[in-house]
Amino acid sequence: MTKTALTPGISMRSYRKGSQMDYSEIIDIFESHDKFLILTHKSPDGDTLGSGFGLCYFLRDMGKLANVVNSDGFPNRYDFMYVDYAPQDFEPEYIIAVDIADPTLMGSSLIEYQAPDVVDLCIDHHVSNKHFAKKSHVEGNTAAAAEILYKIFKQSGRKLSDIIAKCLYTGMATDTGCFKYENTTPETHLAAAELMAYDIDFANVNRKMFDVKSKGRIKIEQIVTGSMEYHINDKCAIISITTELMESCGVDQAEFDGLASIPLSAEGVVLGITIKQRHENVFKVSVRTTDEMDASAFCNYFGGGGHIRAAGCEIKGTLEEVRAKLLERAKQVLLA
Amino acid sequence: MTKTALTPGISMRSYRKGSQMDYSEIIDIFESHDKFLILTHKSPDGDTLGSGFGLCYFLRDMGKLANVVNSDGFPNRYDFMYVDYAPQDFEPEYIIAVDIADPTLMGSSLIEYQAPDVVDLCIDHHVSNKHFAKKSHVEGNTAAAAEILYKIFKQSGRKLSDIIAKCLYTGMATDTGCFKYENTTPETHLAAAELMAYDIDFANVNRKMFDVKSKGRIKIEQIVTGSMEYHINDKCAIISITTELMESCGVDQAEFDGLASIPLSAEGVVLGITIKQRHENVFKVSVRTTDEMDASAFCNYFGGGGHIRAAGCEIKGTLEEVRAKLLERAKQVLLA
Repeated sequence: MTKTALTPGISMRSYRKGSQMDYSEIIDIFESHDKFLILTHKSPDGDTLGSGFGLCYFLRDMGKLANVVNSDGFPNRYDFMYVDYAPQDFEPEYIIAVDIADPTLMGSSLIEYQAPDVVDLCIDHHVSNKHFAKKSHVEGNTAAAAEILYKIFKQSGRKLSDIIAKCLYTGMATDTGCFKYENTTPETHLAAAELMAYDIDFANVNRKMFDVKSKGRIKIEQIVTGSMEYHINDKCAIISITTELMESCGVDQAEFDGLASIPLSAEGVVLGITIKQRHENVFKVSVRTTDEMDASAFCNYFGGGGHIRAAGCEIKGTLEEVRAKLLERAKQVLLA
Repeated sequence: MTKTALTPGISMRSYRKGSQMDYSEIIDIFESHDKFLILTHKSPDGDTLGSGFGLCYFLRDMGKLANVVNSDGFPNRYDFMYVDYAPQDFEPEYIIAVDIADPTLMGSSLIEYQAPDVVDLCIDHHVSNKHFAKKSHVEGNTAAAAEILYKIFKQSGRKLSDIIAKCLYTGMATDTGCFKYENTTPETHLAAAELMAYDIDFANVNRKMFDVKSKGRIKIEQIVTGSMEYHINDKCAIISITTELMESCGVDQAEFDGLASIPLSAEGVVLGITIKQRHENVFKVSVRTTDEMDASAFCNYFGGGGHIRAAGCEIKGTLEEVRAKLLERAKQVLLA
């Protein structure tokens, strides 16, 4: 793969894994086809949408026909990317998946594309990519799929429109927590610096992505945080979300996603646990840890798994039983 | 002033104001003196401390004697910058203020340095800088004082130690909300990219700076958010913090700083108001607005002032009276 060194002298990490193509080969594909369908993943986030729409506008600027599709629709939250987007009417000739590591992530409405070798090209940054497409370009150490696309677009030498730059910036910013997380690389910052040369209103994008919450979400966080318990010399914090609580808030179920980072936000906590009721006597447990603890190992003990800092498992019992099991294991690990 | 273009082709904004020196002149000052005292501002933040300690370590690496002082001490929150710092014993020969726009910001313990021309050099990025030092280098459009120092250090050609890079990164990250706010420039991103070449553990720095809160702070935010009221078609949100509430929480007063961003975090809110009791029947009002409203003009009406997105005023009366006055004015402005 071509390592596009944006600035000389800055060492790039080597890529962990991936079947990588030359950017010029990808640009040739864009040039040699006319009708593109771009697939984004279900429960769409800023990176899959920023990549999808960025690519769509890039191809349209090349004079191609291109559409973006998604199993779950396009959320209002990201509407600045597609407020002026209109689907075009054509029979797709070439299918590209962006930011999709596994065909099941396409979701139920895109099931027809999930069989092997239906998708022509997959552009992704997940090391876990299943290589389900005819061709895959996977950069496991690049922060966002949008960052890969930026490098490809840059190599093409074509001028980018402001909306393309804005889509790509949004993908990079959202996947890195605004350049906050470990996956941010010098290349990510360099790409952001270059994209800021366009009219992208990045401060408003960031405000919308990181600072603004719905009234329902504010209410939920307020209630859930109020129930946070500290254990084991305040090294472990637990929040619990019961079906009853979710129903009493009267807000959309989706608003209850992504609460798992709350317990770990308390100073001194190294093990943050979120217990969320699935059914009567069945609880989904999300575990987050600092670098002092292995979340994956903790969840393995309960038959679950995941990553070293973020993992999950399912535990049966009443809320009190589940909490007691988790605390018992936490004591064994933290007081060892 | 020397515009150190870190990467060619990226347009830099022109500086708004400031008496600017050549970086080489500043480096000459470092070289031609031996005993430096570095002043940082009261209620120290990541930028004044990152700049102060970054400069201190840089001067020590040049073989100079250098100390950092502060009116309010060095908070634990930033201890990774100075965990190994030890003051040196010497009589200062040259005094440098960093990130200090106004001598009163030095605080009461540094009153001896507040008279005009006591400080030899001030390096700052606030357009409002009072030019109180014998020499001032002010870049009003640079995101952080630490970013200015990085450019100076870079021009010196000296190798930076990891701790210097970590201090400077922290200053830049904290003053930009991790590259989120409007003050971030392409140069900020480029400097961050270059500083990541050092061993700075930036993800842990960012976690500590942006994601971790004290238990007391979590409790306060939880209580305050619970009392948030929405008015005028949810365009205005108000939180109120009474003396009684502050006392009942049993946490340090400093934990009540910086709550003013909470009301504006609610979707659709364009006018966020925080009412905080000072004395009986005296309330400090902090106003935050989106780009749809002028916070400064709103506060001017009540005899206060500030910036276009963040301003403040003081209003006398009971909490109910203060709230009513604010809402009446808000209706006039928002429903006009």
